[in-house]
Amino acid sequence: MSTVSLLSDDDLAPEARAVFDDIRATRQVEHVNNFWRALAHDPAQLAAIWNRLKGVMGPGALDPLTKEMIYIAVSAANSCAYCAHSHTASARAKGMSDEMYAELLAVIGMASQTNALANAMQVPVDEAFKAT
Amino acid sequence: MSTVSLLSDDDLAPEARAVFDDIRATRQVEHVNNFWRALAHDPAQLAAIWNRLKGVMGPGALDPLTKEMIYIAVSAANSCAYCAHSHTASARAKGMSDEMYAELLAVIGMASQTNALANAMQVPVDEAFKAT
Amino acid sequence: MSTVSLLSDDDLAPEARAVFDDIRATRQVEHVNNFWRALAHDPAQLAAIWNRLKGVMGPGALDPLTKEMIYIAVSAANSCAYCAHSHTASARAKGMSDEMYAELLAVIGMASQTNALANAMQVPVDEAFKAT
Amino acid sequence: MSTVSLLSDDDLAPEARAVFDDIRATRQVEHVNNFWRALAHDPAQLAAIWNRLKGVMGPGALDPLTKEMIYIAVSAANSCAYCAHSHTASARAKGMSDEMYAELLAVIGMASQTNALANAMQVPVDEAFKAT
Amino acid sequence: MSTVSLLSDDDLAPEARAVFDDIRATRQVEHVNNFWRALAHDPAQLAAIWNRLKGVMGPGALDPLTKEMIYIAVSAANSCAYCAHSHTASARAKGMSDEMYAELLAVIGMASQTNALANAMQVPVDEAFKAT
Amino acid sequence: MSTVSLLSDDDLAPEARAVFDDIRATRQVEHVNNFWRALAHDPAQLAAIWNRLKGVMGPGALDPLTKEMIYIAVSAANSCAYCAHSHTASARAKGMSDEMYAELLAVIGMASQTNALANAMQVPVDEAFKAT
Repeated sequence: MSTVSLLSDDDLAPEARAVFDDIRATRQVEHVNNFWRALAHDPAQLAAIWNRLKGVMGPGALDPLTKEMIYIAVSAANSCAYCAHSHTASARAKGMSDEMYAELLAVIGMASQTNALANAMQVPVDEAFKAT
Repeated sequence: MSTVSLLSDDDLAPEARAVFDDIRATRQVEHVNNFWRALAHDPAQLAAIWNRLKGVMGPGALDPLTKEMIYIAVSAANSCAYCAHSHTASARAKGMSDEMYAELLAVIGMASQTNALANAMQVPVDEAFKAT
Repeated sequence: MSTVSLLSDDDLAPEARAVFDDIRATRQVEHVNNFWRALAHDPAQLAAIWNRLKGVMGPGALDPLTKEMIYIAVSAANSCAYCAHSHTASARAKGMSDEMYAELLAVIGMASQTNALANAMQVPVDEAFKAT
Repeated sequence: MSTVSLLSDDDLAPEARAVFDDIRATRQVEHVNNFWRALAHDPAQLAAIWNRLKGVMGPGALDPLTKEMIYIAVSAANSCAYCAHSHTASARAKGMSDEMYAELLAVIGMASQTNALANAMQVPVDEAFKAT
Repeated sequence: MSTVSLLSDDDLAPEARAVFDDIRATRQVEHVNNFWRALAHDPAQLAAIWNRLKGVMGPGALDPLTKEMIYIAVSAANSCAYCAHSHTASARAKGMSDEMYAELLAVIGMASQTNALANAMQVPVDEAFKAT
Repeated sequence: MSTVSLLSDDDLAPEARAVFDDIRATRQVEHVNNFWRALAHDPAQLAAIWNRLKGVMGPGALDPLTKEMIYIAVSAANSCAYCAHSHTASARAKGMSDEMYAELLAVIGMASQTNALANAMQVPVDEAFKAT
């Protein structure tokens, strides 16, 4: 279905194999999902994105579950089917309850509605909202 | 700048005035921002969106600040200038620190990058990610 | 503000001038708006788009006002500030009332909300909706 | 395929069942489509969206078929596969002819093209197009 | 899967058949892909889009392969599954190597990331970037 | 206008100052544009994005000018005003002629049109276009 083949573990160049090892160690799961198997044709890009993602999505001022829900919101707005599926699964694995998911969906829906209205009417930004 | 005039308090129909009163009472601020002034040409739509937004953005399984950050993420993806400004201001008023905003931006950037790559390569969804 | 200069009538190549003449004759207004002045750097592209637009937006199975409202809807979804402004002005010039605009906005908002929800949940298409 | 299971009639909470009853009564069809079955995990959200949609999409200053075509236009721009299918089916059920659909597609295509060009060149809005 | 049936060669109106003949002659392949078979319900639109596309995508100041890669970039950003597949196949047929595709993907990812950040922060355009 | 203040050189933390020095050395221009001044509130993110961008946009299997044009295409599709301006300026500085820009715009417009049509009709992908 994709525009590139999905590489199996046996197909990987050594640099890509090292990234897969780190994905498995970091996530403590055996399954390496299709996004990385598609990206593995370019080991340098694979490593760059995985390393940055690992840092960005880890704990910090925001907890990892909040970050996964933000990821879902962006993915819905960008109409990314793969990303909606994979990050909803990740969010659930990190503890997103049915109630949390329902509220996440409600916010995504509300934001999309008012985004479209503000873009249709081209509402000018209030002075009070601009950074000084 | 907008496609409709922004109604002042003196221009409001009674149903719209009641919504403005509720906005002021709920948010405990005098300033009613431009989005509502543009929407007020249609008091029924103004009331429907405000009432739904008030419910959706209030506390629940997710706290109001988390909801504002999700709103910012959707607004960035939808390229809504007004919404990015207004919800960043709201998130700050609800306690978003510089560190939280920096991490929010990092997640938005990372999600947008991998969304585009998954959409370019049309990666098929892993069976493990589908709801049963 | 734009990435190209806006050509005045005196700057136009002959092929571009002919298109401007046709815009004025077709619309029966003297004002040629900025989109065409930006596009006029490439007279062939200017002519191709104007001629196609003139045909597409004219009367047919759908009336010209319905077409303008569809144009506004696409422009809001694509976050095109210029297009939202210019086609709202065109729709008003063709008879869009305040009530019609309010309902148009309500449909745009509703569609954007359910689009985002369907994209977030990746709802599978019902068999009944597929063309045979 | 979706991120949530699709609820059958037997799975519904009472509040969701009441919404399904109203969908069937309003549309006078037995089939309740997948979007509502996915949304039914959150009966409050299901009820809120259905009730608003029922009002927005009904007759008013714009006829229901025009509203369905506007919905299709937004859905194409937002790349919502589910919505494109379901609202094209609805529009056909409400009388959209092949000629009307062809013209709708032509307007969607034309708007998307000029949206992209205006966004690429960042054409400034003509003074004449701004609301006073 | 689509909202319209895909016309076989036997279903074509004469004007559509002439376009299919030209597609085969221009591309020197027997296979006419599904996009044109869906569009063929409206022969006038089919002819208008094919003729414009043939001109736009041919050699000029940019070579045809560069144009295909630009097409892929737009398609990823618009989340168009069909277009990502068809234009990746076209680009490969015109000589896109694995290394070129990998770099194309990297640029698409980088642009999407910084687009989202600039849209989230609403960075004002530097004076130096505006056309004079 | 932005949601964050734009840092002047005097406001920079040491890690951000080092990035600015590298931007000036790499581009051989004194002007550091606003995007980096907004991002500089988070020096770690500033460094991560600049270093990745420097690598991605440099020469490789694709030349730097081709990459800038791909960046413009993504930016138009994502409706990023800042990015359209900044990368059009970059492309011109790297040698994009008026003819090249005109053809770039034509491809962006054509791709956006057919993307929208494919998304509206939900055309299924031809088997011939799928990776084996």
